[in-house]
Amino acid sequence: MAIVELTVCPLGTGTTSASKYVAGAHEILSSQSSVKFMLNPMGTVMEGNIDEIFSLIRKIQEDVFDKGVDRVYSIIKVDDRRDKISTMEQKLNSVNSKLK
Amino acid sequence: MAIVELTVCPLGTGTTSASKYVAGAHEILSSQSSVKFMLNPMGTVMEGNIDEIFSLIRKIQEDVFDKGVDRVYSIIKVDDRRDKISTMEQKLNSVNSKLK
Amino acid sequence: MAIVELTVCPLGTGTTSASKYVAGAHEILSSQSSVKFMLNPMGTVMEGNIDEIFSLIRKIQEDVFDKGVDRVYSIIKVDDRRDKISTMEQKLNSVNSKLK
Amino acid sequence: MAIVELTVCPLGTGTTSASKYVAGAHEILSSQSSVKFMLNPMGTVMEGNIDEIFSLIRKIQEDVFDKGVDRVYSIIKVDDRRDKISTMEQKLNSVNSKLK
Repeated sequence: MAIVELTVCPLGTGTTSASKYVAGAHEILSSQSSVKFMLNPMGTVMEGNIDEIFSLIRKIQEDVFDKGVDRVYSIIKVDDRRDKISTMEQKLNSVNSKLK
Repeated sequence: MAIVELTVCPLGTGTTSASKYVAGAHEILSSQSSVKFMLNPMGTVMEGNIDEIFSLIRKIQEDVFDKGVDRVYSIIKVDDRRDKISTMEQKLNSVNSKLK
Repeated sequence: MAIVELTVCPLGTGTTSASKYVAGAHEILSSQSSVKFMLNPMGTVMEGNIDEIFSLIRKIQEDVFDKGVDRVYSIIKVDDRRDKISTMEQKLNSVNSKLK
Repeated sequence: MAIVELTVCPLGTGTTSASKYVAGAHEILSSQSSVKFMLNPMGTVMEGNIDEIFSLIRKIQEDVFDKGVDRVYSIIKVDDRRDKISTMEQKLNSVNSKLK
């Protein structure tokens, strides 16, 4: 189980807005159920099998090209651990338990 | 107004846990009010004046060193725009409005 | 053709040194010839087919786990364009041609 | 002494080319001598005092806005260590010494 954050920057679009590509990512993620996901203002966080996540990232990137963009810059952060099962919820709980 | 995501990786600590450093970041962010912030499973997102945010990032990094870590690897994503005021909430709303 | 930069951070190793994992990545990359690569002080840049690159990144991550690390944090930046063939060399030349 | 990599993505420019902004960054970096720097196909790596580097990053971002861009997305990776002096050259040597 890995937790991965994806941010997609379309270049050369002529508009500063990028939300329609993020919405496209969410449609792709909503059409499946094995990888959980959560939107934040700087990216989309996914939780699941790392190979399935990488395959979804590839679909999301191709969707941006399909929408007419010629250059896509993606930033991917991968948090993969093998000593225990890590989930998005448990990571948040772990921090919250240390706050007063 | 910029929106910035910070992820801090402590190296060489002998433990895979990093939540106490994230909790430290939250204490620093909670002690001020001009920069808004939001935790997600892969980082902390901040919204405010970019110079104030950079100054808070420096404080958070030093706090990790103060807690005994010898090497800190940080990943910072900065989304700065000048054509309109951008907030964390408005970015999320913009995506949600495009979802069916 | 995509250009991708990979940085791998091993967590919980008890030492601040990470060069042996970077060396492991280079051995994996040297054992193949379809993806070109270039080391810099903050990561390894690869050039080639994006699916082949993603598959190499997965091998490199598993190699770090095989070396005994329990948590691996990776940062991946992907620059993929479809309007023209982009290479590492051509990107550097493009900047250099604009310098006085 | 910290080692920092900066990548700047201009959004909404109407062209997929970004090299003129990278060239602008190099002119800013060339006009000073306390922070060393090195270009690679995916970013610019800097070595020096972390506060000076952050101040240079702010100048580089403003230069992109000055060139007419309305939204700038930057990715910054910071490798800061306090157990020994770390340089770009020594990081590369450390990996090379482990390669056969």
